[in-house]
Amino acid sequence: MTQQFSPLKNDRLLRALRFEPVDATPVWMMRQAGRYLPEYKATRAEAGDFLSLCKDTDKATEVTLQPLRRFELDAAILFSDILTVPDALGLGLYFETGEGPKFKKTVRTEADIANLPKLSMVDLSYVTDAVTSIRHALGGQVPLFGFSGSPWTLATYMIEGGGSREYRHAKEMMYARPELLHALLAKITDAVTEYLDAQIIAGADLVQIFDSWGGALGHRQFAEFSHHYNREIIAKLKAKHSSTPVVMFTKGGGLWVDTQADSQADALGFDWSVPLNKARALLGKNKAIQGNLDPATLYGTTDNIRRAVSDMLHDVYDGGIHTGYVANFGHGITQWANPDHAKAFVDAVHEFKW
Amino acid sequence: MTQQFSPLKNDRLLRALRFEPVDATPVWMMRQAGRYLPEYKATRAEAGDFLSLCKDTDKATEVTLQPLRRFELDAAILFSDILTVPDALGLGLYFETGEGPKFKKTVRTEADIANLPKLSMVDLSYVTDAVTSIRHALGGQVPLFGFSGSPWTLATYMIEGGGSREYRHAKEMMYARPELLHALLAKITDAVTEYLDAQIIAGADLVQIFDSWGGALGHRQFAEFSHHYNREIIAKLKAKHSSTPVVMFTKGGGLWVDTQADSQADALGFDWSVPLNKARALLGKNKAIQGNLDPATLYGTTDNIRRAVSDMLHDVYDGGIHTGYVANFGHGITQWANPDHAKAFVDAVHEFKW
Repeated sequence: MTQQFSPLKNDRLLRALRFEPVDATPVWMMRQAGRYLPEYKATRAEAGDFLSLCKDTDKATEVTLQPLRRFELDAAILFSDILTVPDALGLGLYFETGEGPKFKKTVRTEADIANLPKLSMVDLSYVTDAVTSIRHALGGQVPLFGFSGSPWTLATYMIEGGGSREYRHAKEMMYARPELLHALLAKITDAVTEYLDAQIIAGADLVQIFDSWGGALGHRQFAEFSHHYNREIIAKLKAKHSSTPVVMFTKGGGLWVDTQADSQADALGFDWSVPLNKARALLGKNKAIQGNLDPATLYGTTDNIRRAVSDMLHDVYDGGIHTGYVANFGHGITQWANPDHAKAFVDAVHEFKW
Repeated sequence: MTQQFSPLKNDRLLRALRFEPVDATPVWMMRQAGRYLPEYKATRAEAGDFLSLCKDTDKATEVTLQPLRRFELDAAILFSDILTVPDALGLGLYFETGEGPKFKKTVRTEADIANLPKLSMVDLSYVTDAVTSIRHALGGQVPLFGFSGSPWTLATYMIEGGGSREYRHAKEMMYARPELLHALLAKITDAVTEYLDAQIIAGADLVQIFDSWGGALGHRQFAEFSHHYNREIIAKLKAKHSSTPVVMFTKGGGLWVDTQADSQADALGFDWSVPLNKARALLGKNKAIQGNLDPATLYGTTDNIRRAVSDMLHDVYDGGIHTGYVANFGHGITQWANPDHAKAFVDAVHEFKW
């Protein structure tokens, strides 16, 4: 079944990813549908908890569109969570107030891994339904991102049973039983590939893979336990959807540009620790760049936000390539950001002339 | 008052920092006196809480020496905490079971900063007493590290009132009121300089500055709000104690080798995200290198620990400089490490031949 959607009116972001000329720098914000917006909080309160909001097609569509009404964003991103996949694998995702996400079950033994079911997209039809609904609601206004967590990042939650600071159990498996971790990562890789494939079929114009905890790894371990699987997912998606762009975002991965360059990703996302002129010098036109303002910049004055945007854009464009770049933060916008300051960020990006 | 101490029997680490030939690679472990050792837990139980242990000269001396009895370490490090300085500045450090360190007071306003007292080393005489006691007890076995937190790292605790994941208030001050943060950092810089000077006078053979949260900063902010002050402390210490080595450890600072190279530090410490061959290529003989095994490596088999040590030492030595390097982890050893595996790490470093 191929969906029929309106033609795209704003393809600035897709052009930038292809290194084609753009009239202005495209910009979006990771976690742009989020708690910093009062209208988001109102819709979420109606839905009840966070997962109910993800599973309600109309409300998930509504919160996805909310930031686009306030800001001249050049992309929308599916409202969902990276932990939908482990939840669909039977781990029992839940959220406790004031704490992060948790799972009822953990995956730590050979038997735990062997007993993981194959992903059934029936359990995730609420995600593909949301993608199709959002794509229709957008009416071609901007492209729509689908997304998934990376296998390593999802594995940390599945092994630890929730968020972690030290990754004790995940790293114990990595160093003591690497073959077990590889077996788990292979299973997650299959699930993520199927999940992203389904999102693209349902209407996602492009996808982003979030390797939120890739930066917790040693440089050799990143190549072996994270990048290797990200690369495989991207290759499989490209074999089937050659024209659908893939953005690979590894938080804390700025030291490994050379490793990360070895994939079919169209763009690499960076956090604020990375001087973008150095990333550009290493990547050239091999891959576009996305990022990387510290979202805490929004706590400052609008003058300082404009200056920070200007510094960032000078970094990435001063090598002489005036496309191949998507402005964003280096991680999600925080719940404490002032929406007017988010607007100042978006507008400053568009107003910048190189 | 100049102390009289025994001459040093093992100066391998000091020789490596001066790029002099060494018979084996020197090695120590951040947080080597810690909860992974049953004898540490026994002494701590006798002392009561963590702060009482720091303040008891005999017990602080005992726990400092404990790992040296088990392992052939090439340095000792003062048993203390980086938060002694903010505590001495009147913030009221306390520890709650199962949670990190906390302060009774926070420092967030102009008045809070103006009201901070000048550091009185009388309030920290327990630290200098411990340094002198440990140095005597060592009898010249190995050199003794003193240490302090960096101004930025200490500021995060003082502003947040404890540990943090997002540094909301510290970053709000940074982006909204940078002049306030600079005023606070200037005060902490004076205190840290005096604190490290006093430790050197009391008997520390060398010192390490821990910028544990430097990696949370953007690259420009690291230079302005962290490195600038670290550099100033090191310059002031060097003006007074030109032959006392200084090791500068910035967790997450591997992207900023060029910025960090601009100081009088003798060595830079790196975490496990950094390929040491790249750091060496950038630093040459300008600065020695310390680090950088993931302490979680100890969760694996001793065979895998040996392989990881070999990989790390090949990285740092393959450029042809066979000194100027101190093996260590890239952060503190964890409470879950097996002491026998810590021994395997230390022994593997010493056995490695380049």
